[in-house]
Amino acid sequence: MDTTDIERILTQVSEGSLTPQDASDQLARLPFSDLGVARIDHHRSLRQGFPEAVYAPGKSLDDINIIVDDLLGHGTGPVIITRANPAQVEASEKIGLAHSLDAVVTEGPDVSTVVFRPAPDLGHRIIVVTAGTADAPVADECAAVLRGVGLDPQLLRDRGVAGLHRILGDIDTLSGADAIVVVAGMEGALASVVGGLARGPVIAVPTSVGYGSSLEGVTALLAMMASCAAGVSVVGIDNGFGAAFAVLRAIGTRS
Amino acid sequence: MDTTDIERILTQVSEGSLTPQDASDQLARLPFSDLGVARIDHHRSLRQGFPEAVYAPGKSLDDINIIVDDLLGHGTGPVIITRANPAQVEASEKIGLAHSLDAVVTEGPDVSTVVFRPAPDLGHRIIVVTAGTADAPVADECAAVLRGVGLDPQLLRDRGVAGLHRILGDIDTLSGADAIVVVAGMEGALASVVGGLARGPVIAVPTSVGYGSSLEGVTALLAMMASCAAGVSVVGIDNGFGAAFAVLRAIGTRS
Amino acid sequence: MDTTDIERILTQVSEGSLTPQDASDQLARLPFSDLGVARIDHHRSLRQGFPEAVYAPGKSLDDINIIVDDLLGHGTGPVIITRANPAQVEASEKIGLAHSLDAVVTEGPDVSTVVFRPAPDLGHRIIVVTAGTADAPVADECAAVLRGVGLDPQLLRDRGVAGLHRILGDIDTLSGADAIVVVAGMEGALASVVGGLARGPVIAVPTSVGYGSSLEGVTALLAMMASCAAGVSVVGIDNGFGAAFAVLRAIGTRS
Amino acid sequence: MDTTDIERILTQVSEGSLTPQDASDQLARLPFSDLGVARIDHHRSLRQGFPEAVYAPGKSLDDINIIVDDLLGHGTGPVIITRANPAQVEASEKIGLAHSLDAVVTEGPDVSTVVFRPAPDLGHRIIVVTAGTADAPVADECAAVLRGVGLDPQLLRDRGVAGLHRILGDIDTLSGADAIVVVAGMEGALASVVGGLARGPVIAVPTSVGYGSSLEGVTALLAMMASCAAGVSVVGIDNGFGAAFAVLRAIGTRS
Amino acid sequence: MDTTDIERILTQVSEGSLTPQDASDQLARLPFSDLGVARIDHHRSLRQGFPEAVYAPGKSLDDINIIVDDLLGHGTGPVIITRANPAQVEASEKIGLAHSLDAVVTEGPDVSTVVFRPAPDLGHRIIVVTAGTADAPVADECAAVLRGVGLDPQLLRDRGVAGLHRILGDIDTLSGADAIVVVAGMEGALASVVGGLARGPVIAVPTSVGYGSSLEGVTALLAMMASCAAGVSVVGIDNGFGAAFAVLRAIGTRS
Amino acid sequence: MDTTDIERILTQVSEGSLTPQDASDQLARLPFSDLGVARIDHHRSLRQGFPEAVYAPGKSLDDINIIVDDLLGHGTGPVIITRANPAQVEASEKIGLAHSLDAVVTEGPDVSTVVFRPAPDLGHRIIVVTAGTADAPVADECAAVLRGVGLDPQLLRDRGVAGLHRILGDIDTLSGADAIVVVAGMEGALASVVGGLARGPVIAVPTSVGYGSSLEGVTALLAMMASCAAGVSVVGIDNGFGAAFAVLRAIGTRS
Amino acid sequence: MDTTDIERILTQVSEGSLTPQDASDQLARLPFSDLGVARIDHHRSLRQGFPEAVYAPGKSLDDINIIVDDLLGHGTGPVIITRANPAQVEASEKIGLAHSLDAVVTEGPDVSTVVFRPAPDLGHRIIVVTAGTADAPVADECAAVLRGVGLDPQLLRDRGVAGLHRILGDIDTLSGADAIVVVAGMEGALASVVGGLARGPVIAVPTSVGYGSSLEGVTALLAMMASCAAGVSVVGIDNGFGAAFAVLRAIGTRS
Amino acid sequence: MDTTDIERILTQVSEGSLTPQDASDQLARLPFSDLGVARIDHHRSLRQGFPEAVYAPGKSLDDINIIVDDLLGHGTGPVIITRANPAQVEASEKIGLAHSLDAVVTEGPDVSTVVFRPAPDLGHRIIVVTAGTADAPVADECAAVLRGVGLDPQLLRDRGVAGLHRILGDIDTLSGADAIVVVAGMEGALASVVGGLARGPVIAVPTSVGYGSSLEGVTALLAMMASCAAGVSVVGIDNGFGAAFAVLRAIGTRS
Repeated sequence: MDTTDIERILTQVSEGSLTPQDASDQLARLPFSDLGVARIDHHRSLRQGFPEAVYAPGKSLDDINIIVDDLLGHGTGPVIITRANPAQVEASEKIGLAHSLDAVVTEGPDVSTVVFRPAPDLGHRIIVVTAGTADAPVADECAAVLRGVGLDPQLLRDRGVAGLHRILGDIDTLSGADAIVVVAGMEGALASVVGGLARGPVIAVPTSVGYGSSLEGVTALLAMMASCAAGVSVVGIDNGFGAAFAVLRAIGTRS
Repeated sequence: MDTTDIERILTQVSEGSLTPQDASDQLARLPFSDLGVARIDHHRSLRQGFPEAVYAPGKSLDDINIIVDDLLGHGTGPVIITRANPAQVEASEKIGLAHSLDAVVTEGPDVSTVVFRPAPDLGHRIIVVTAGTADAPVADECAAVLRGVGLDPQLLRDRGVAGLHRILGDIDTLSGADAIVVVAGMEGALASVVGGLARGPVIAVPTSVGYGSSLEGVTALLAMMASCAAGVSVVGIDNGFGAAFAVLRAIGTRS
Repeated sequence: MDTTDIERILTQVSEGSLTPQDASDQLARLPFSDLGVARIDHHRSLRQGFPEAVYAPGKSLDDINIIVDDLLGHGTGPVIITRANPAQVEASEKIGLAHSLDAVVTEGPDVSTVVFRPAPDLGHRIIVVTAGTADAPVADECAAVLRGVGLDPQLLRDRGVAGLHRILGDIDTLSGADAIVVVAGMEGALASVVGGLARGPVIAVPTSVGYGSSLEGVTALLAMMASCAAGVSVVGIDNGFGAAFAVLRAIGTRS
Repeated sequence: MDTTDIERILTQVSEGSLTPQDASDQLARLPFSDLGVARIDHHRSLRQGFPEAVYAPGKSLDDINIIVDDLLGHGTGPVIITRANPAQVEASEKIGLAHSLDAVVTEGPDVSTVVFRPAPDLGHRIIVVTAGTADAPVADECAAVLRGVGLDPQLLRDRGVAGLHRILGDIDTLSGADAIVVVAGMEGALASVVGGLARGPVIAVPTSVGYGSSLEGVTALLAMMASCAAGVSVVGIDNGFGAAFAVLRAIGTRS
Repeated sequence: MDTTDIERILTQVSEGSLTPQDASDQLARLPFSDLGVARIDHHRSLRQGFPEAVYAPGKSLDDINIIVDDLLGHGTGPVIITRANPAQVEASEKIGLAHSLDAVVTEGPDVSTVVFRPAPDLGHRIIVVTAGTADAPVADECAAVLRGVGLDPQLLRDRGVAGLHRILGDIDTLSGADAIVVVAGMEGALASVVGGLARGPVIAVPTSVGYGSSLEGVTALLAMMASCAAGVSVVGIDNGFGAAFAVLRAIGTRS
Repeated sequence: MDTTDIERILTQVSEGSLTPQDASDQLARLPFSDLGVARIDHHRSLRQGFPEAVYAPGKSLDDINIIVDDLLGHGTGPVIITRANPAQVEASEKIGLAHSLDAVVTEGPDVSTVVFRPAPDLGHRIIVVTAGTADAPVADECAAVLRGVGLDPQLLRDRGVAGLHRILGDIDTLSGADAIVVVAGMEGALASVVGGLARGPVIAVPTSVGYGSSLEGVTALLAMMASCAAGVSVVGIDNGFGAAFAVLRAIGTRS
Repeated sequence: MDTTDIERILTQVSEGSLTPQDASDQLARLPFSDLGVARIDHHRSLRQGFPEAVYAPGKSLDDINIIVDDLLGHGTGPVIITRANPAQVEASEKIGLAHSLDAVVTEGPDVSTVVFRPAPDLGHRIIVVTAGTADAPVADECAAVLRGVGLDPQLLRDRGVAGLHRILGDIDTLSGADAIVVVAGMEGALASVVGGLARGPVIAVPTSVGYGSSLEGVTALLAMMASCAAGVSVVGIDNGFGAAFAVLRAIGTRS
Repeated sequence: MDTTDIERILTQVSEGSLTPQDASDQLARLPFSDLGVARIDHHRSLRQGFPEAVYAPGKSLDDINIIVDDLLGHGTGPVIITRANPAQVEASEKIGLAHSLDAVVTEGPDVSTVVFRPAPDLGHRIIVVTAGTADAPVADECAAVLRGVGLDPQLLRDRGVAGLHRILGDIDTLSGADAIVVVAGMEGALASVVGGLARGPVIAVPTSVGYGSSLEGVTALLAMMASCAAGVSVVGIDNGFGAAFAVLRAIGTRS
């Protein structure tokens, strides 16, 4: 709850332009839309300076229609739909057209990221580095979200530590970065190596890449949590979206 | 390996002031001290702008003597010893006196954090918030390290979500913070609540607080990784030191 | 074994109207139907005042036909079939028609809940609150069962703690409730927040919602068990039916 | 945040007896004591009708002194200290004497439960049933807390399902109970059996009793969550306190 | 290696009818068929008095053809194929016909058990008891194998402990049994109850029945291992075949 | 509940020598002693033909005194106390002397097994085989209990499969045994090898022997459950007592 | 980074044939191909004497085309593609034909191993031994890779320890081997038995074979790690490729 | 069973110098000493060319006396006692003196490694590399065993990947090694980096070093199993002894 909101309401009460009962109601009815299917948190966007984001899995096409329409109709900032299946992508694109907006779609093997009204690049040096080609879908989701919020990243692919010299050519790039997202499955060792080279925030994303002993990402998750490189922090398995938002928190949207 | 180092060496070779063989040797002998018991990584400090840090567990008093003496004798920045037992604290203090330096000791129930030459406060708004009193030792370690690097934090204690109104009075403090460390055991729900209120980086530290179902911190770790608040990132169980360094990465040492 | 049953049988023996051998037989043949495919526990309904319930998975259409027919033919209370697939729903509806009963079907994405002879609403204030839209199927199953037993609930959807103010408008509703079911996946933090606001019974249902680090509901299960809110109790993953019965136990069917 | 509080404050603003700024401050300063070491949540007691409770582990004797003194000095209801070690018990007793209050101490093998100002028995039929003698400490903690809040329980000990006839003599007791707490380690099967016999709320507490395959309570926890008896709900491992509060939620403090 | 075999070979050497080199070869070539795809262990049948058994998953139809043909062509005892898919069943039946043998097929929802040359019933009182209808396929596999080896079992279905009186009518049956197999998923509590009633061997089979908290049988497995009923032993998840062989070991094939 | 008991009571009622009310009381008061601290299940001994057994951990010396005195005063069969600490052993021995009975004490490194009135050897060929010397305490507990019930075993020690030839000399012994208990930690492979050699019941006991990857017995437990030798069944980790009772179930006490 | 490379570059700088800036660039651009989709590590082949290997899962046909074409166009040694689906196999074969090379394809049930330019057999005695027929696909992958690098193995199939005599005929083969790969699922006991018989390197591969308690290979993995046979080492679940490379490391490519 | 042994015995039978019965006995009595407390496997030493090794935990001083005395009295090769506590070390030293042998004791923080009759260095280039100082005890055990068998290693300490340049100076050492043991806790990433640099066998030892998220070595174990560096194999947690024997298997004792 935002103090300035409270003070504004209280001032109106103090001035007699608002009854105590109405004020109490207003305090409870903070800015969100109750659409029946979901409560859209426009307030979060105001409160945190974050873009509006929709997590598509489990939502019907009707849900998508109602929610995306509501989001595009409020505010002017980026709107991001993550993990949308083809039908959800198509539905989103149609609603966008109804608002005269083109969707930027980043396709993954199963699901896609859709962005409307992406912010212009703020010029920060953001790096997304992957260990292997199989980590690409998670890195692509992360990059799509980052581009949506004006933090256009440079992608360094295939830098697994088993070929250490592959990362050596990037030392300057990594040590000079404003923020780095490390996307790795298997044993996730790349996070420790990058964490030891970089001075900026390093956000590690364990991926569910790898068979058997990778335990669908749990091995990389645990390894990244136990990283010997100080100050590396970790988001959930395959959570490229979360990593992008962790960067957004660290960098802000200050140009 | 730092490109400017390489170029300096190469230039000397080019000028004839260094033979190829000697240059090759120099490239291998980058700035660290080989003390027999440990290889002190002075280079990391240069490379990352991080303070020197010593993880005390498993080190003999002789190890501590040699390593701390070496660190205090090189450079002028902060030197931090974490998780030192009483004898290690005493040994560190003695070495400090030999260098005419006073140790700042933050005592925990079992182990302490020792800081030499703490940096002056850079004036950032850093918050360390805990869920319960039992989380205090981890929060104190984190705060001690933050103070060591000039990021003096404000501590908000006992803000567990079961008494939600306790956190409501802090909403302004949290939403205006430059960085927040959330220290919580049990179910770790405080990370999600704070993550929804704050716009800056939120680093969650699961603690091993709680009996039985807390599984010595694993429950909080998993819950924080799966947080519904976008962009919250997590460090290892009880790793107050790591959280402080994650803040250092996000904020930097830029005044 | 019900003491009054025993005493009745014993009295008949004492009066000579029942031989000891027959009495022994009667004690063993307590009221259940042995249908070959299953032993229907009519006695449970008498003993516990609970409705008859059928767990559909793994049952053939023949099984469903026999069991539902038996249940509709005995007693007059509610009959509930949970997690029925479309063919099982259709079979149930047909048997219902043969008994001149309409089925109330609550459809989920994969399976449905079928209720016959739902009890009239007893007027209790029961709340089912969900963290996100993906928790809806579990909440819907829970609500369908509650309506079946006369405990018609109010649903509060999309109250995840990352947007704390979304729950603030519901504080009065929650604190005045007779019982609350909290349905949440991911980190399940909503259970702790609601547990801190409400005074009545709070039953938490972990859902298998969320990818990767949610470990198919285990993360939420552990977090809810370790909740810092005193007296929150937990049922199995995705077990909306169990949560409804826990409410039924707490509230009873006393009007 | 309590709506009536808000309305009172708003009315004062409306009447001019409170400035908007002061009102905003008051909203943030809801009734808790900030004691430095902890934020005592007196508001929770008002909000939930629950007694004040202190979880002793990790608290210094000074913490105990300050917190218990504060609690005994506010309000007139029960004050409960759980898992107190002998020194914490002694400290609590001394503070009690300073308030002219006798402590009711329930000793366990390692830690004790301390209650001040226990409520008079409200006359409900509450049962605490254990599977084996080793479950006694958890049951005793639960019973001590129940007695503190006026829900004096009957204890049924040693009713493990391997000797099924031991539970048969209690069927009437169990089926007529207002609420039952089942305390069991090992495989926790007693929860399912009792759940099938009783109609009232059944709260299961897994204990860390048993060697090896019991996995320190995890086996019983999982088994109780997966119970085939509908509507059994579960609290954390060894959490006798939590079970007592779950009963309190179900029964209330209505006489 | 069978001592009598060794002595026979040694005696032949002693008598000069076998050279040491040939004897050494014979010792290595003990009675099994090397079919290329698999090494059939006829010796096991001789050594243990067990029937020949083939685990079908992963075997091609060619493998099945070769192996079953070999088994039917050697010896005269039962031959059992477990977990055969429809094509493997059909192939087995054809080979049987070529040997003038009818297959006894027990169909499960996914895979079937095929038996050739089942032994006549030896007249032991073997019980297979299940907790719920969903445990039927595992119980059916177990029963099919038992019938194959002459230990025709009685099946007691749907005896879950939540309706305790359902098991009370079977107490005499259970306490007089020569061996009992308990097949249960969820929390597996039936094993403890039966273990407390019966005096003969009780073999528990955890099944993967149940959603979420059942963890695909791990919960039942752990609970059965931690059973409070002394002397209950456990076989692998869903391993009806293994349970039948454990009974065979306990009872033997002594008529 | 024993049918003959029921019939006897019913006959008395029929004959007028017992009122229905008294009969009902008698049915509930089946033969167990309610000693306050524990409910001794004498009925189990009658029902199952098992000896009386006391699990000592968690019991006070007073508990031991009361329980053992009660057991020695009823019946004439073996009484077994498992996992007794030195003080519990001493207390047991004193009570034994009061009953003019000598205790047979099998000392382990931490706890001991105490047996009174051991049964004479019934002459069965029972084998207890261990993988390594560290498995000895579990094997000794098992052997002590077996001797208590007249199933005096032969111990084969140190037969780990890494030295396969060590087991080869025992093949005749193993294949001719009436029952075998395999006690092994680490990877528990001995159970599979013995299971392949023996025809009688094979009960595997995983032990918590081994460091790190043995996960305190969980590795051996899982390996034994997944054994490729058909019909091997498993009891809990370190549960030598349970293995002895599993043998007792398989062999019976029929001489 | 190879010292001889560094010295060559440095010598050129010393001789003036290379400027320091160009030298710095060259050091960063070590021999790998940046193909956009992946960074091929030709350097690894030079550095380790290993063949080029491509892990196919997650790679598009375009990726396969580009990468395999690059690999076949560089160097003359073996090129191995693992876990290729049918379309990837076909694509690889086409590229091979464009380079006038025939692919050696080892088909598995789901995926295949493709080898180009296999090395001639170096004559070492390499054994791949499996426990059961279901382990064949992993063993076949391992064997295909071994043949690719000139270490043609002998396969011993179906040597599970439950039929111990099956392995006895192979003792000479095993004890005389230069290296052994043990491929086993379920409880993985074969690794311990072989480890006790052989003197050369024993590499164990846990497979995901087995249902339920095998936990998709985790049971075998843990059991092999805890093996009582000294010096057995383990690679990841189903990782036949890794086992082949572990042999390559132990044997080398020295003829 | 060794074929040459068998052939020798058979030849004696053939020559009439041995009766078949005696031969059969000899085959069963292969060369091991049955000392009552343990079966010493002298045959293993002959069969595998391995030294005699004793795992001390759980053995009484009497056991140690008997076993070590037996080992020193047979053969002339190295005898190794691992994980001996101080009393066991002292006992071993005394027995050594009785055989006129000096013990080489490598002391760890808790337990020590004792070696008698160490083999002379065979001149191989063996490396033991550790990630941090806390890994030293495991590395020291490994090195002590390696020195015992004539494979004197070079130790590289403190080469954790967070300071990547620390390992760069060792590239030549690592790539030229005959075998490398990587000892690392936390996330174990050093195994992947070394695996990518070296061409010889790389044996990874996960250590239980690290707090919380390291899960007592399980994190490192999983990470090393999932290593992206091909052909790295892993031994058990903290198993320095096993790693040394894996090297011994790879290198052999061929000078």
